[in-house]
Amino acid sequence: MKVTIERGTLLKALSHVQSVVERRNTIPILSNVLLKADGGTLSLTATDLDIEIVEKVPADTDAPGSATTAAGTLFDIVKKLPDGTQVALEKTGAGRLRLSAGTSDFSLAVLPEDDFPSLPQAEDGQRFHVETDELARLIDKARFAMSQEETRYYLNGIYMHAFEDGGHASLRAVATDGHRLARLDSKLPQGAEGLQGIIVPRKAVIELRRLLDDAGSTVEMLVAPGRVRFTFEDIAFTTKLIDGTFPDYARVIPQGNDKMMRVAPSDFAKAVDRVSTVSADKTRSVKLALDADKLTLDVNSPETGTATEELAVDYQSDAIEIGFNAKYLLDITSQIDGETVTFAFADTASPTVIRDDEDESALYVLMPLRV
Amino acid sequence: MKVTIERGTLLKALSHVQSVVERRNTIPILSNVLLKADGGTLSLTATDLDIEIVEKVPADTDAPGSATTAAGTLFDIVKKLPDGTQVALEKTGAGRLRLSAGTSDFSLAVLPEDDFPSLPQAEDGQRFHVETDELARLIDKARFAMSQEETRYYLNGIYMHAFEDGGHASLRAVATDGHRLARLDSKLPQGAEGLQGIIVPRKAVIELRRLLDDAGSTVEMLVAPGRVRFTFEDIAFTTKLIDGTFPDYARVIPQGNDKMMRVAPSDFAKAVDRVSTVSADKTRSVKLALDADKLTLDVNSPETGTATEELAVDYQSDAIEIGFNAKYLLDITSQIDGETVTFAFADTASPTVIRDDEDESALYVLMPLRV
Repeated sequence: MKVTIERGTLLKALSHVQSVVERRNTIPILSNVLLKADGGTLSLTATDLDIEIVEKVPADTDAPGSATTAAGTLFDIVKKLPDGTQVALEKTGAGRLRLSAGTSDFSLAVLPEDDFPSLPQAEDGQRFHVETDELARLIDKARFAMSQEETRYYLNGIYMHAFEDGGHASLRAVATDGHRLARLDSKLPQGAEGLQGIIVPRKAVIELRRLLDDAGSTVEMLVAPGRVRFTFEDIAFTTKLIDGTFPDYARVIPQGNDKMMRVAPSDFAKAVDRVSTVSADKTRSVKLALDADKLTLDVNSPETGTATEELAVDYQSDAIEIGFNAKYLLDITSQIDGETVTFAFADTASPTVIRDDEDESALYVLMPLRV
Repeated sequence: MKVTIERGTLLKALSHVQSVVERRNTIPILSNVLLKADGGTLSLTATDLDIEIVEKVPADTDAPGSATTAAGTLFDIVKKLPDGTQVALEKTGAGRLRLSAGTSDFSLAVLPEDDFPSLPQAEDGQRFHVETDELARLIDKARFAMSQEETRYYLNGIYMHAFEDGGHASLRAVATDGHRLARLDSKLPQGAEGLQGIIVPRKAVIELRRLLDDAGSTVEMLVAPGRVRFTFEDIAFTTKLIDGTFPDYARVIPQGNDKMMRVAPSDFAKAVDRVSTVSADKTRSVKLALDADKLTLDVNSPETGTATEELAVDYQSDAIEIGFNAKYLLDITSQIDGETVTFAFADTASPTVIRDDEDESALYVLMPLRV
């Protein structure tokens, strides 16, 4: 293999693929990136056996072939090369990868490229195009609610499926950890009709989201048994799906909550943030006491002291007191882009529904704490 | 105690003093800040028993008195209050500190203010004024060489003393960890004549340097037995000195090094940084091979591979090969503000002298590694 490529092009591709590589690996070759040069294209592949990312970039392929070398080291080297340098990569007879650029010359250890694992690719499945902005929005507003508990592995990701309701067809994303839930809708893309639920795992969600910043206007999704592939620009991002059953989330969303509080999300968030300063413990419980057009926030910590905050809100129902985890409240209010947010309470012990008054497609549910 | 103060004024003072407070404290009161209100002034004191910082700020002192409360919590609360708020602090009958500001109301735990420790203050000693910029420069360029080894505690700080040589009188700062040494001179301030050596401990150096960014043009130093006090603006910063003997650093600085290499520090640093990418081990050894007007940098790592870099330099002496810790080389070259830096080598095993060609007042020494 011999290939010459502009430093900026190589750096961008490496920054994309090397992030998938786990920092500490018991299988040495998983630390590596697979480089393949052929016909004016350099392809870079990284995998952790669950996710595979392949990026193709234009390059002068002086001799076709392939090589694998440590992804992190290669990325660090290219990052430190001067802007605009031409980088030559050559597999030498001595079984090394030689990198020459300007005044620099590196000879890097390689591993046999035949040992590099590849995820089985499915070319058959449901294929459709989703707008990049919409896919990013679904992820951005749902990801905070993904679980991290290993015992409930089927919650460790974002659940996506096609949803139809009275003529409205949506691509729906749901995440929950049992304490809070986020449900986001986007217009169902053509070809996604009848999409059965898939659970995209946490790490894939985070890596994919990072890549979307550099993506064009649409992303092709190919949903096949056990895996999904996202294709955009010169990148193919494949991930295994979580093999489990996502719970029937619709049953968790209460329908009859009728005590409505409307408030500006930033005022509310700042007040919650201030009072929670005194709560050192893990639950970070904050009590909301509602009365006619008035919200009182209360935190009481035995060691540190107490904090109280009064806020003018729009509220006309019966007085109610209800406790929440302060961090969970902040997580949800930070998703609200509109001028106001509405909290729909039922009673002290029941889940609360939270909605962006300017975005019908988003819905959040939060379980209360005992206070 | 009852005092009202503008949020920004209180926040700035708290940001200064709370940094001295250790995050984890076995003695609870050391987590606290001592507040004293009297005659239109609020004074804030924090200490870790080695360092004491006292800052005085203007405030409406409605009732004189004092209180102590957790410095970190108070700082966090004030940080989160809206800009421009008036903050009222009052010690209540129930033995709490009440903080009211806008819509917020806090009641914070206190500890008896009589238990708050105070460092014995010396009013007698050698007193002089040093320019803030000069004091900051001495610290900035010497601090990297301070030791962190507990066994050689007398190296864990910056050594300062008055130095006279052929009519030139300097305030001199020296730091060394046995592997590298930094020596900086500044014009001796009036009144500092004959200053015996003091060792200002690492933490005090770092905290003081942080404060100097907000200081006026001069700092008053009062050097007394076992302690030094720095006074500027409304801050008095006192620290115990390290009770030990700083080694005779002059003996470490070689006089006869005659193999001179001149190079642009940024080109040199970038090249060292690039080749050291492949060295995963702790010593991060890089080999410098010098020949007529040519420097070759070499790093060899058994696992990762090798790296070579060639650099045009100004060098007319005999060829020499010498190894250094890459990080130490980078630490020193990052102190060089001039266009060129000169390395004066003796031989492969002897310390190298490094000087900024545009700043005679700075001198660095670096021990080689065996390569």
